[in-house]
Amino acid sequence: MKNKRRVIGLHAAESVLKNTPEQILNVWLDDKREDRRLNELRHQLTTWGIVAQPTSKKKLDSLADGEQHQGIVLELNLPAERDEADLRDALTRVEPHSLYLALDQVQDPHNLGACLRTADATGVQGVIITRDQSTGITPTVARVASGAAETVPVYRVTNLARSLTLCKESGLWVMGAAGQSARSLHETDLNLPLVLVVGAEGKGLRRLTREHCDMLISIPMVGQVESLNLSVATGVLLYETLRQRACALPGNHRP
Amino acid sequence: MKNKRRVIGLHAAESVLKNTPEQILNVWLDDKREDRRLNELRHQLTTWGIVAQPTSKKKLDSLADGEQHQGIVLELNLPAERDEADLRDALTRVEPHSLYLALDQVQDPHNLGACLRTADATGVQGVIITRDQSTGITPTVARVASGAAETVPVYRVTNLARSLTLCKESGLWVMGAAGQSARSLHETDLNLPLVLVVGAEGKGLRRLTREHCDMLISIPMVGQVESLNLSVATGVLLYETLRQRACALPGNHRP
Repeated sequence: MKNKRRVIGLHAAESVLKNTPEQILNVWLDDKREDRRLNELRHQLTTWGIVAQPTSKKKLDSLADGEQHQGIVLELNLPAERDEADLRDALTRVEPHSLYLALDQVQDPHNLGACLRTADATGVQGVIITRDQSTGITPTVARVASGAAETVPVYRVTNLARSLTLCKESGLWVMGAAGQSARSLHETDLNLPLVLVVGAEGKGLRRLTREHCDMLISIPMVGQVESLNLSVATGVLLYETLRQRACALPGNHRP
Repeated sequence: MKNKRRVIGLHAAESVLKNTPEQILNVWLDDKREDRRLNELRHQLTTWGIVAQPTSKKKLDSLADGEQHQGIVLELNLPAERDEADLRDALTRVEPHSLYLALDQVQDPHNLGACLRTADATGVQGVIITRDQSTGITPTVARVASGAAETVPVYRVTNLARSLTLCKESGLWVMGAAGQSARSLHETDLNLPLVLVVGAEGKGLRRLTREHCDMLISIPMVGQVESLNLSVATGVLLYETLRQRACALPGNHRP
């Protein structure tokens, strides 16, 4: 299963066929089962020239490892992680609306997966993660990302500070999330070419990472808890960026 | 362990002592360990009249079930869930800035915990959950909520549609999150007494729930994935509400 992952059930399979059919390695289909959605998938697989393996329900149960498979299991390539050279190449194409996300030593695969999902939804062009003390793209990350691990480029770098310097030199503003900053994201102009930097839960940004930010911004907290879940905080930051950019378009109003 | 939960480690223990010391049932402290933070906790426990049980490292390892305990484990009451009568009572005090969150059949304890954490951070006055097909306040929910299960009232109701009607009658606007709505949250005035209603991941709001909403709003999605993680979506909705309300205060500007 190294470098591979399984996708289980109709909805997830439909999504793969719609977005990234080229990633499919194997398809197992219940040869006894006939229904509209499964037949539609059979038809699409044929269109893409993909040969499904007729499989018994018992074998599918085992492939799906207890999950509801509804007659279909796919096997996909796990998306490849890119490296610093790839990032350097991508950063030659910075534009006024470029948006990157950097995660400083985030270890929880559920958090990385949810961040990728939000990154896709908000038009992030690349997610930068660290080689040390960080999860890479695992089967869990790809599953939680719901397809976004296939659509959002992930750059895994050995030296985040150096990569942030590269981002700056390429014209991106480096904005770090830090609870202790007095500057709220809502008071910050995010309608700039940007890389948002978020640290691990409980730890925040490392000192060296913080020192490489142009600006530190915080998310207002009006209650008792001290911080948000990492993927929630990232979602709030990315959606405020999206909102400000949409508002800045001619003809759009602000509520 | 029914109706109880453990809190493990210095940081979590400090947070409990600061916010909800009255929930503490038991304290186990490493009797061999001396350091500044642990001694400060000993001092605070004495101030609150709480007697810690001197405990060996081995016993603490077992109580902490493999987690890093740093010499301290607490046992707390699990917060009580409230019921429809409590909700009815709370709704007699609706004000212009009242903010409630309703979760329609959310089963994942990690999602409920993360939603409670964000609810605390955004000043939500109460979270309404369903009795059926929903997780209640379990030890996992309380742990993930990082203290918010103790600070945010949770109302568990048998009939969400009826409770939403009650919300309306009490002066709240009922706004449901629905991906298919053409009305973006960013184009919606959220500076009203409000209950935001969010459905389970993959399912969304039930038909009857949807029909009890005054308005359906969506979160813009510019990529390939079809939806956000539930707690991320809830965070985006609650923070947009907070932002609009802060912007509406005299003297505040909009970026």
